[in-house]
Amino acid sequence: MLQTIEISKITKIDDGSIITPKGFSADGVHAGLRYSKNDLGIIYSEVPANCAAVYTQSHFQAAPLKVTQESIAKEGILQAIVVNSANANSCTGEQGLQDAYEMREKTANQFNLDNHYVAVASTGVIGEFLDMSKINKGITELKPQATKDAAVNFQQAILTTDLVMKTSCYEVEIDGKIVTIGGAAKGSGMIHPNMATMLGFVTTDANIDSGSLQEVLKEITDKSFNQITVDGDTSTNDMVLVMANGQAGNEPLTNKHPQWNEFKAAFQMVSEELAKQIAKDGEGATKLIEVEVTGAKTKQEANAVAKQIVGSSLVKTAVYGADANWGRIIGAIGYSDASVNLEKIDIYLEDICLFTDNRPQAFSEETAKAYLENDQIKISVNLGVGEAAGKAWGCDLTYDYVKINASYRT
Amino acid sequence: MLQTIEISKITKIDDGSIITPKGFSADGVHAGLRYSKNDLGIIYSEVPANCAAVYTQSHFQAAPLKVTQESIAKEGILQAIVVNSANANSCTGEQGLQDAYEMREKTANQFNLDNHYVAVASTGVIGEFLDMSKINKGITELKPQATKDAAVNFQQAILTTDLVMKTSCYEVEIDGKIVTIGGAAKGSGMIHPNMATMLGFVTTDANIDSGSLQEVLKEITDKSFNQITVDGDTSTNDMVLVMANGQAGNEPLTNKHPQWNEFKAAFQMVSEELAKQIAKDGEGATKLIEVEVTGAKTKQEANAVAKQIVGSSLVKTAVYGADANWGRIIGAIGYSDASVNLEKIDIYLEDICLFTDNRPQAFSEETAKAYLENDQIKISVNLGVGEAAGKAWGCDLTYDYVKINASYRT
Repeated sequence: MLQTIEISKITKIDDGSIITPKGFSADGVHAGLRYSKNDLGIIYSEVPANCAAVYTQSHFQAAPLKVTQESIAKEGILQAIVVNSANANSCTGEQGLQDAYEMREKTANQFNLDNHYVAVASTGVIGEFLDMSKINKGITELKPQATKDAAVNFQQAILTTDLVMKTSCYEVEIDGKIVTIGGAAKGSGMIHPNMATMLGFVTTDANIDSGSLQEVLKEITDKSFNQITVDGDTSTNDMVLVMANGQAGNEPLTNKHPQWNEFKAAFQMVSEELAKQIAKDGEGATKLIEVEVTGAKTKQEANAVAKQIVGSSLVKTAVYGADANWGRIIGAIGYSDASVNLEKIDIYLEDICLFTDNRPQAFSEETAKAYLENDQIKISVNLGVGEAAGKAWGCDLTYDYVKINASYRT
Repeated sequence: MLQTIEISKITKIDDGSIITPKGFSADGVHAGLRYSKNDLGIIYSEVPANCAAVYTQSHFQAAPLKVTQESIAKEGILQAIVVNSANANSCTGEQGLQDAYEMREKTANQFNLDNHYVAVASTGVIGEFLDMSKINKGITELKPQATKDAAVNFQQAILTTDLVMKTSCYEVEIDGKIVTIGGAAKGSGMIHPNMATMLGFVTTDANIDSGSLQEVLKEITDKSFNQITVDGDTSTNDMVLVMANGQAGNEPLTNKHPQWNEFKAAFQMVSEELAKQIAKDGEGATKLIEVEVTGAKTKQEANAVAKQIVGSSLVKTAVYGADANWGRIIGAIGYSDASVNLEKIDIYLEDICLFTDNRPQAFSEETAKAYLENDQIKISVNLGVGEAAGKAWGCDLTYDYVKINASYRT
């Protein structure tokens, strides 16, 4: 049976954000961890919200991730997420853990919540202790509101050297009710240059239990946040958190619900938009690169090949130099673990065929070069050995990437 | 029982090369594949030599690799290796395979050999056909000699945009006979920018059967050539070929021979020196980075962590910027698959301790920066969870890497 998702029912909310779903508010303040910009933020749900989370695959999870996991383990419910930038509270040992607990407790006290209804996230330099007096004072200044300005305050507070704020919002009708999903994220950037951290926060007023929410988050993360790469390095602080507070009033969403796929599709749109914004704002980047792989044996292989291509330094520099260098794409496919056969591979740059029938194709270098001068580049690869597809996103590798990351920390 | 290798018996031959082992000669000529430099070379053994080879892990092995594998499969014996630069003969389909066969056959005819006594290697741009009239004419001009000049001619003929020739030579006494091992290699560089290719050629006059030689080559490659990285991209043409012609007159070497470990140690030195020369001459590189990992659970994990660190773009840019950024080293360790525990990790930059006892150490940034201005950098990591060790080599990531690889092909 052919399964069709009626995506006409999913609507993008251009000026939507994390406070657009019913019952959510936010704020961001300048606690003094950095010179002048906001550096402490909160997302708040007026009622306890079912939640889900995914964490970095690094062996060295930072202290706030441990505390957040402990919060969620207790009931699968959150009501507030407190986030600081400028300091990742990573590689800070027992002291760092105590600081993350204190940050959680102060926030819980401030909003009259049980401790385990609060999640904690941090991003910034690693190996330094948090200035808890500044954090604690900042927490008392947080006044979450459901306004655009308050959302912007939050979005600013989570940035490090990101150049732009990252937001997305979609609506979908479920059981005749409007369900809204909003998101905010930060990407790759540094205070002192340590490592990039990706943080994502998604709010929704959908009525959905924690288990089902986790199922959606896991599935969608694997084809959105986990499919971006800036430089192949994984942070100790990466985390995506979702809160669903049920205020939309739909029937409980599970994978048995007739509109399960529509909810997932809307969730995917929010996640994918945030992921693309992060990739495009990668350090030193001038271009967003999207790689779509079709004709793979499995989804996993499609995703892996797409990510391998978009992560290749040689592909990234070729895109920066506006060079339609298909040989490097072949090279990246060649060293993936996927099932491949050179005779069956097609490679397209947008609609320009570069390689098919086991041989390079004649194409206009001028047309290809002109296309590669755009700030969004699409590479399509058909592996021709199966039916599965996947996408990945990244950015070009530029002088500025080297400049940003070679500059001395102090 | 403690096994000690008496490395005093192993001597470096400063001006040695592939023609230093008895019975080997070489040559290189300008066949016209590129503007003026040598582009076609040969290594020749005056008697049939037992051989061994390792090949790229890319799914897309280039035509010359297929032909070489076919040659070796027949008897495990080679007498000549013919190599061209400027064109990789990769992704060239049936025509490319025929061209590689023709290159083998012309060489065999020229030197009165059976076809399967000849191996073929190519490096350069991919996706273009070889100009066989130039190749064939060049082959007739090859006059292998056992002179230093002839070795240099060969070493030049295999380079692409490599800045320096890569050679190494060691002697070891086996059964009272002098056994010599010489090597030549090319590293990462491009004609048109496609992908870097690593080629390694090792000659020895040791008396050793093909099976034992393959055993040595496999073991040593895993801790030399396979432990270098320039940009994480794997070529379709990588290959290391070894010929052992037995002229040293030692008793047959096998893993039962009492001096097996000494032979392996000498072989390791040649391979490691070539590997380090390739890493140091990586595209745009200004520094050789050596990472030594000790205290790992297994050798494989030690090697993997070392390669992960030396391959991290953030570590590479930090070394370029002379920044003792231990957080990036922690980051790279964190996303490896190895068994690790942050509390047990020590990180040293030469003899400067950056991280131990689960916390960053106070160190002089000036001293660290001064050390990082050297052109050879040593990073040591003790994982503290086992007894195994491994090394890897790479280079810094610089503006010039981006420049070289972003420049337009034509």
